[in-house]
Amino acid sequence: MQHENIIFPARKSLVYPLISACEIDCLMFFNMNNIRYLSGFTGSDGVLIVSNNRDVLLVDGRYITQAKLEAADTEIIEYKDKIRGIVEVVKELGLKYIGFEAEAIVVQMYNLLMRELTDKVFVPVGDDLKLLRAYKDEAEIALMKKAAEISSAAVLALKSEIKSGCSERDLALQLETIARKSGAEQLAFETIFASGENSALPHAKPSDRKIKRGDFIVVDFGIKYKGYCSDETCTFGFQELTAEQNNVYQLVKEAHDQAIDMVREGVTAADVDRCARKVFGEKYEKYFSHGTGHGVGLEVHEAPRLSPFSQDTLKAQMVVTVEPGLYFPGRWGIRIEDTVLVKKNSCEKLTKMDKGLIIIE
Amino acid sequence: MQHENIIFPARKSLVYPLISACEIDCLMFFNMNNIRYLSGFTGSDGVLIVSNNRDVLLVDGRYITQAKLEAADTEIIEYKDKIRGIVEVVKELGLKYIGFEAEAIVVQMYNLLMRELTDKVFVPVGDDLKLLRAYKDEAEIALMKKAAEISSAAVLALKSEIKSGCSERDLALQLETIARKSGAEQLAFETIFASGENSALPHAKPSDRKIKRGDFIVVDFGIKYKGYCSDETCTFGFQELTAEQNNVYQLVKEAHDQAIDMVREGVTAADVDRCARKVFGEKYEKYFSHGTGHGVGLEVHEAPRLSPFSQDTLKAQMVVTVEPGLYFPGRWGIRIEDTVLVKKNSCEKLTKMDKGLIIIE
Repeated sequence: MQHENIIFPARKSLVYPLISACEIDCLMFFNMNNIRYLSGFTGSDGVLIVSNNRDVLLVDGRYITQAKLEAADTEIIEYKDKIRGIVEVVKELGLKYIGFEAEAIVVQMYNLLMRELTDKVFVPVGDDLKLLRAYKDEAEIALMKKAAEISSAAVLALKSEIKSGCSERDLALQLETIARKSGAEQLAFETIFASGENSALPHAKPSDRKIKRGDFIVVDFGIKYKGYCSDETCTFGFQELTAEQNNVYQLVKEAHDQAIDMVREGVTAADVDRCARKVFGEKYEKYFSHGTGHGVGLEVHEAPRLSPFSQDTLKAQMVVTVEPGLYFPGRWGIRIEDTVLVKKNSCEKLTKMDKGLIIIE
Repeated sequence: MQHENIIFPARKSLVYPLISACEIDCLMFFNMNNIRYLSGFTGSDGVLIVSNNRDVLLVDGRYITQAKLEAADTEIIEYKDKIRGIVEVVKELGLKYIGFEAEAIVVQMYNLLMRELTDKVFVPVGDDLKLLRAYKDEAEIALMKKAAEISSAAVLALKSEIKSGCSERDLALQLETIARKSGAEQLAFETIFASGENSALPHAKPSDRKIKRGDFIVVDFGIKYKGYCSDETCTFGFQELTAEQNNVYQLVKEAHDQAIDMVREGVTAADVDRCARKVFGEKYEKYFSHGTGHGVGLEVHEAPRLSPFSQDTLKAQMVVTVEPGLYFPGRWGIRIEDTVLVKKNSCEKLTKMDKGLIIIE
């Protein structure tokens, strides 16, 4: 991608104002997705210290060669012991007020650092960092579109493979294989492929249950492409549905469509959630047992959250899911989900499957 | 499995002595693998409170049906808001001294709980919990053997598919598909399939590089079976190796074999690590850029650690990897890894691939 040389300095430039605003000397990152976002390093372990003077990426011996290749903009230092490595860099850089991600450091690491750096002040940074990755730049949007295309195409291709007697597990594997052959590097999350009574479990795992007439089949699928996630849910009917199933599907679709119609710059996330709940009304809302959506990016669940409790406001360049569902324990469930890019006056669907009711014959 | 009814009470009974020893009223678990181990619940979010009087599993609406099915031994309570849910249960159970996993709670959650429960005392529990899952019971060992069998068989089957011109990415996908068709539920970690100069990166990602004469091919592969991980690394030669490559392979194999010979109850993890390093000697040890191994179970990396800094002593029923490697940046690398069950006077290999040098024609 032609932006690669300018991306990481531009992203790091989002951090310097936070350092000033929080009156700290540096921000110490442990969240590997934040580290990837800011430096390009894709390993599974490391620490990134961003300060006004120097940025340092600390990695262990496994990752030294890879870090030098991927994070060419950033100074790389190797550590044998993580705590000691951090302590040395903090002392060398003369940092005193150390901001850290309150959501990424566990209490044990925090206590160890405090014990070794008794003359430093640790400042938890939470809300200020929450939206660090929420606004997607052009390079990210391009990757997220590609991720969504690959996974929607895989679901479309899989649809014609669904036959009576196929097991959820086999179909999930076929779906994943199709996506991988089309360029998915890995799954964004464990595939949900839930039929019949299993579709009433919002987070069911693929089982040996075989598809049969009258089933709803909930396929919640996402892949990663160059680190970026897709997330989409289709609910198919199999061969024949009851009038009740048809009606409830249309109700979920109405909630999905109305919520998506609301999504634009300036709308609160809680209002989008409320919109879906209002469509369900008193009779059905109690069967909608999760929030309406969430941000997507390097993580499949990230800021903002679309739930009754959310304090977030949607802004242009955010990418979020809209995924209302209704679940009737022991019977069946329905979820309909798209991932959308928030724009000034509307939103753009990144996921491509049509959400009208599809009955597989 | 016939043990299912007695497993979870037996495992929870490991926690009560810790509660007494730490002089606390309960242990609050956030680590989902610990929660799965102790209760059977396999969801992705929840909190388990184990106390001498009552054990409570808190889950959100997505998981209520699943939790009741999976954690039938444990009282289940649904929360809408996690913090509020915890606060209510802590008050209802009359808990004052609250032990928590220092390695699993992030500073933000900790601060929120402290703010809501100002009259309670939070006690970080680290070292006492570290080995909670380290000793595998019979049910676990059976699952880990099955996991290792599936993945070794997949690597063996894949070996005959490796041809000149195949890409790392395609071969990795084939390997994963074979394993999934044989019962793997998911990968234990991102497959490493690294050839030629990529084999010098201990954690390389599968790329479009094509296999060619003279390559080493490092295949580090693991799957999950009913939650339990396998972990094994084979390094194959492709068509023709230099004398140096042959010699260095034999050196890594010697380090691997000697380290495995040492593994038994009572040996320190650091000594096993030292044994591998000693085989490498001064000339090569600097190219061994990671620890010799780690525990495996519900997580692919768990206690104990086999590294120069490890304080752990190996005990019967632990399951650990032994995986020395040498990496020459820009040239090639070799890693040889088995997962073994520690026994009183020896160890038993769970992974099944032969580790003698295999040259693929």
